[in-house]
Amino acid sequence: MIRIAVIGHLARTAGDFSLSDMPGSAGRMDIMCRCINSAFFLSHSLRRDVECYLLLLGPPGPDRIVRFMGDRLRSLNPDERSAGALIRKALAIPAGTEFRESSPGVGVKRGGPADLVSMGPFAVLDEEGEDIRACSNLPENYILSDHLGFSPEEEELLRGRERISVGPATLHADHAIIVLLNEIDRRRAGWM
Amino acid sequence: MIRIAVIGHLARTAGDFSLSDMPGSAGRMDIMCRCINSAFFLSHSLRRDVECYLLLLGPPGPDRIVRFMGDRLRSLNPDERSAGALIRKALAIPAGTEFRESSPGVGVKRGGPADLVSMGPFAVLDEEGEDIRACSNLPENYILSDHLGFSPEEEELLRGRERISVGPATLHADHAIIVLLNEIDRRRAGWM
Repeated sequence: MIRIAVIGHLARTAGDFSLSDMPGSAGRMDIMCRCINSAFFLSHSLRRDVECYLLLLGPPGPDRIVRFMGDRLRSLNPDERSAGALIRKALAIPAGTEFRESSPGVGVKRGGPADLVSMGPFAVLDEEGEDIRACSNLPENYILSDHLGFSPEEEELLRGRERISVGPATLHADHAIIVLLNEIDRRRAGWM
Repeated sequence: MIRIAVIGHLARTAGDFSLSDMPGSAGRMDIMCRCINSAFFLSHSLRRDVECYLLLLGPPGPDRIVRFMGDRLRSLNPDERSAGALIRKALAIPAGTEFRESSPGVGVKRGGPADLVSMGPFAVLDEEGEDIRACSNLPENYILSDHLGFSPEEEELLRGRERISVGPATLHADHAIIVLLNEIDRRRAGWM
């Protein structure tokens, strides 16, 4: 199982946003939606062995973690609005301390950066890290940030974690996920 | 200069579509929009040395080629609606036999598959091709198709062209572009 966690520092935590204004009033929710697309879509199928965690830290609070599980997902299409609609539905139900399902394969709970980081041995996707092609063993858990990068508090939580770079250019989070999964696909298929 | 051409077999050829229904009535225009995102966005900047050609073959016709030029692009944001708005604007002006600019860095002309293929020595991104990592010299021109794949007529136009695969999994066009550009970034930076 590959797990990918993405931090959305401005992403709205209530299900009242417009699918037509995700970059604006939804707090760059478009980035979160593209990460969902990158994490799950193959041509004509979904990556059933991936889970994606979106940490939403924007207003009105409290912080939320929305989990997408590839093995149970339904009703996800590749366009941004489709992922946005599932996130909005997750944010519309009451969130407790455990994941609660809002639609097949999608669940939500309360939780901030410390909760997310405690959920797995996440390696950090970071342009200063080791080249992914040079890593002899790839981890199964990855964390990355939106356009704002990790905050000092988040960096502190992630101190000592393995850091992996997908290439020489600094990429958007959703693009970094594509390169990561390509490397994983290649190793599994024996294309090295 | 890297040139990337994408064929949208159903993509609408009039600027009357809704940005809120790009997968539906706009003929999978969402795919074209994500290819634009993939071709141009770096974190905090645009790839100025890329051109992207979208061949739109859907109703009402005639066929159109929309060209995005990275060195002159402005007003492009990463979300699908932003690229969609620029495509819509291009389709709203009269199209002739030469490119005519509809907004900075975006132009449109009439033209079908044969016109597009004649515009450059495009290599075909194709899962049956040679592994991109094994190519000793990467081309500068690439063509790929939407979810429908190339038609028999398009395959005939592309017969004999170099064929390159980005990995063992069959990917969406926008994801294949990300892997392609990562390989180009690595070679330019000496990360091999």
